Amino acid sequence: MNSKNLMEKFPLERAFTFFESGPAVIVTTSDSVKNNIMTMSWHMLLDFTPIIACCIGPWNYSYNTLKKTSECVLCVPGADIMETVVDIGNCSGEDTNKFEKFALTPRQGEKVKAPLITECLACLECKLMEEYISGKKDMHMFVLEGVNAWHNPHREEQRAFHAKGDGTFFIDGERIDLRSRMIKWQSVI
Amino acid sequence: MNSKNLMEKFPLERAFTFFESGPAVIVTTSDSVKNNIMTMSWHMLLDFTPIIACCIGPWNYSYNTLKKTSECVLCVPGADIMETVVDIGNCSGEDTNKFEKFALTPRQGEKVKAPLITECLACLECKLMEEYISGKKDMHMFVLEGVNAWHNPHREEQRAFHAKGDGTFFIDGERIDLRSRMIKWQSVI
Repeated sequence: MNSKNLMEKFPLERAFTFFESGPAVIVTTSDSVKNNIMTMSWHMLLDFTPIIACCIGPWNYSYNTLKKTSECVLCVPGADIMETVVDIGNCSGEDTNKFEKFALTPRQGEKVKAPLITECLACLECKLMEEYISGKKDMHMFVLEGVNAWHNPHREEQRAFHAKGDGTFFIDGERIDLRSRMIKWQSVI
Repeated sequence: MNSKNLMEKFPLERAFTFFESGPAVIVTTSDSVKNNIMTMSWHMLLDFTPIIACCIGPWNYSYNTLKKTSECVLCVPGADIMETVVDIGNCSGEDTNKFEKFALTPRQGEKVKAPLITECLACLECKLMEEYISGKKDMHMFVLEGVNAWHNPHREEQRAFHAKGDGTFFIDGERIDLRSRMIKWQSVI
């Protein structure tokens, strides 16, 4: 099976549903020389369109590329590649070609040069809207606007996972449907 | 059993582990007249100390109180009160005393006037550090510094839950221990 053919377009206005639950994500960037990836848990929605804030700073190798190109892709990995995602977070693009090292398959998106990752559940092509820097405690944040969304509904493992922060990870468990109670939010459910 | 006695102090420097996974949280605020609560999923860590960013804007009734008092408490509810948490998000403090309506028990913390919620898994007393407003698309964000942490290790249900954004919710599922792979992050695991 050619896994490259399994990533399909997804309605951009529903792409926030891939991120609201706070899964671990992989960020891809690309300069003119190579692609890079980093693991990230510190992100949140700011708007349904979607706009997403994330904590990436000069301490991350991806920071300069993201700032220079104003583009990245946020990819949501499935629980079946959890160990790879952790290993991605334990080495640096400074001295490692991570796509090669972890045998991941980049695929060109449509709106940005940074690649999708074919092995993921979902990918969101993003443009950098703003950078927020606070002098207090050296905090950095990027605000990203999603411009094109993809998903792979054909892969067997559709569960995302979440970093606890202590080296343990929760796989998405039972899914409870409370749509009937969301009386104030019928427009987004 | 007096549930008020079950909330215990928790090491502040480990409190980020309650939030990194992106659970649904309840935010408490208090002006001189009354306490209020709101449900929130849009938050992220910015620092391990912990510092937490969250998306609260003038469209939230809690916004003015949080801005005026510069204080709030972030509470992590368990999966056993998921329906209550959804219902909290479907009414406003403008016309509802939510602590009464939902039979929640406020408990005075130590560092801020906003109350802990005794029924939750964990609570983080927070001071407002900064407000970030972007002219683009009317985005608002508060940056909060956690100053005191609590948890209830005695309650039976210790699983948090996560909003998908579409009216469905994931309960924390299987917990996978990958600490041995976190070679770059031994100081925080």
